[in-house]
Amino acid sequence: MEEADEKGVEGKVRDLQKAIGVDLGGTNLKTATVTKSGDPENLNYTATEAAKGPKHVIEKIIKSINEQLQRSGVKEIKGVGIGSAGQVDSRTGIVYDPPNLPHWQKEDLRKVIEEEFDLPAFVDNDANVAALAESRFGAGRDSEYLMLVTLGTGVGAGLIFHQEIFHGASGIAGEFGHFTLNYDGPLCQCGQKGCVERYVGARWIIERARTTIPDYPDSKVNQLIKESGNKLTPEHIAQLAHEGDVLSIQVMKEVGTFLGAALGSVVNLLNLDLIIIGGGISNAGSVLFDPIKKAILEHSMSIPGSMVRIRKAKLGEHAGVIGAGQLVFKGLATPP
Amino acid sequence: MEEADEKGVEGKVRDLQKAIGVDLGGTNLKTATVTKSGDPENLNYTATEAAKGPKHVIEKIIKSINEQLQRSGVKEIKGVGIGSAGQVDSRTGIVYDPPNLPHWQKEDLRKVIEEEFDLPAFVDNDANVAALAESRFGAGRDSEYLMLVTLGTGVGAGLIFHQEIFHGASGIAGEFGHFTLNYDGPLCQCGQKGCVERYVGARWIIERARTTIPDYPDSKVNQLIKESGNKLTPEHIAQLAHEGDVLSIQVMKEVGTFLGAALGSVVNLLNLDLIIIGGGISNAGSVLFDPIKKAILEHSMSIPGSMVRIRKAKLGEHAGVIGAGQLVFKGLATPP
Repeated sequence: MEEADEKGVEGKVRDLQKAIGVDLGGTNLKTATVTKSGDPENLNYTATEAAKGPKHVIEKIIKSINEQLQRSGVKEIKGVGIGSAGQVDSRTGIVYDPPNLPHWQKEDLRKVIEEEFDLPAFVDNDANVAALAESRFGAGRDSEYLMLVTLGTGVGAGLIFHQEIFHGASGIAGEFGHFTLNYDGPLCQCGQKGCVERYVGARWIIERARTTIPDYPDSKVNQLIKESGNKLTPEHIAQLAHEGDVLSIQVMKEVGTFLGAALGSVVNLLNLDLIIIGGGISNAGSVLFDPIKKAILEHSMSIPGSMVRIRKAKLGEHAGVIGAGQLVFKGLATPP
Repeated sequence: MEEADEKGVEGKVRDLQKAIGVDLGGTNLKTATVTKSGDPENLNYTATEAAKGPKHVIEKIIKSINEQLQRSGVKEIKGVGIGSAGQVDSRTGIVYDPPNLPHWQKEDLRKVIEEEFDLPAFVDNDANVAALAESRFGAGRDSEYLMLVTLGTGVGAGLIFHQEIFHGASGIAGEFGHFTLNYDGPLCQCGQKGCVERYVGARWIIERARTTIPDYPDSKVNQLIKESGNKLTPEHIAQLAHEGDVLSIQVMKEVGTFLGAALGSVVNLLNLDLIIIGGGISNAGSVLFDPIKKAILEHSMSIPGSMVRIRKAKLGEHAGVIGAGQLVFKGLATPP
């Protein structure tokens, strides 16, 4: 195989083979040209416009890939990797019923892209590819058994064992958002009761803050709601918590405690050495991370509970495209 | 390496290399001489007498191993494998704080056995070795991603991916008994709240039956309690449920529903293709298995929930010694 190495800025040998990485979320569609050493180039963000349905979204994906190909030159590109929301069968590249992409039921995304571009394509879950990126180039480089949890509109997760995505029997492992925190708890929009996402998904973090306002009339959250025209996001609350707002700290503490209780079970089951927390609210810092650690210790056995490390994700919003690009190098190196 | 193959009764080539397998539980100490093809010979069961403390129990283990060596001849034996209750670090062979072995804190079982017999020794968790045995010779031979759940005094579990025990970062993965079913549920004896074991451990199954008796005055459970001198076991209830006793069916349904709710989370996280249920109450049959299946579907995503199969364990009480023996062949084949 052709190799295109050169010394990078840190003196490490960088592998400059390139792939296109696509991060398909319910809100944003991100693309980049990514080197095998994990450097993203030509970052391009656009609105997914998911409400317009799968045909429109797939056209937008194709347009974005074409732009990357034009900038980098077709000959330079080894393939296309896509991280998609939803249940993704990574063996076939079919995306099933992603909750944040309306009207998608069963889309053969791999086939569509391969036929359009005559390039090898690989599709995996968005949290899985972000976890792969953190494992290879981010917060998890020293870990053998890690889970990345991304806190956003939904709660995603990816498991990486020995630097590879753990897929399970049909490519769908890592569905932590609908992990049961209370078998008899409040109804989640998925139809199950007491899912993790029902406690720490964006919508529920905001509701938790709003219902707590009467107890904290002087909170900056009140002021923020007025200034923003009644718009409040989990990132706002995380930021205010980081700045010392008592209401926001209380909300982050509750979120961390719920999340940690569920993670305690995961730690008991998998004896992980690292949990990486990503997504907007991970910026809250210790007001979120300390309650997570405390709850893990309370909900896990002594040895696995005390050895697992908790870290903030390092690659931020680029993790998706970087990991998606890695799918290509990984896929081409593995016999079909 | 010396090979000692012969045609077995089914015409398959059997590998007759031998190891001693030890299954160390809170109640029984089982030993056997086990072939590489999974056949147990010289099965020997004795009481663990756990209450007499670790020194006494270790002396009993040594005595049992000596009996196996005398029967088989020392030269025939490749090593000793032990499946032990408790948190076991399989890399070092140290057993930590098993709840059903009083006064054990940190016992270096591997070192003790290797020094006593001058044979290689391997130690792993008892549920892990039973899972390994089921995977290689029992109900899981066609599975790539399985979990064995053993329902006894406690609730044990072992994860087998690609026919190997999944250990996680420090050798302790598979602690499903203290997986949280309700973060705010009743207190478990481990100190955590709402653990699986707090709902489906032996003690709680019996309590569930006793508190349900007033609703079913004609139940055979009443008669059984009188005849047995107020002794009631989960196996009794499972047997009566299998025979159609309405109270016992109700109890098995509740046990299956709790267990299935927790397994739904595991299925979401790991996308298993098989769950094997072992232990005395697995004899209850469909009155237990149907509620488990229903609850898994209710507490998991569509694809992983619908594809996972649920089966009864096949090797019964021999699974422990058979799997323990396999640790030796596995360990000797792996460079340290």
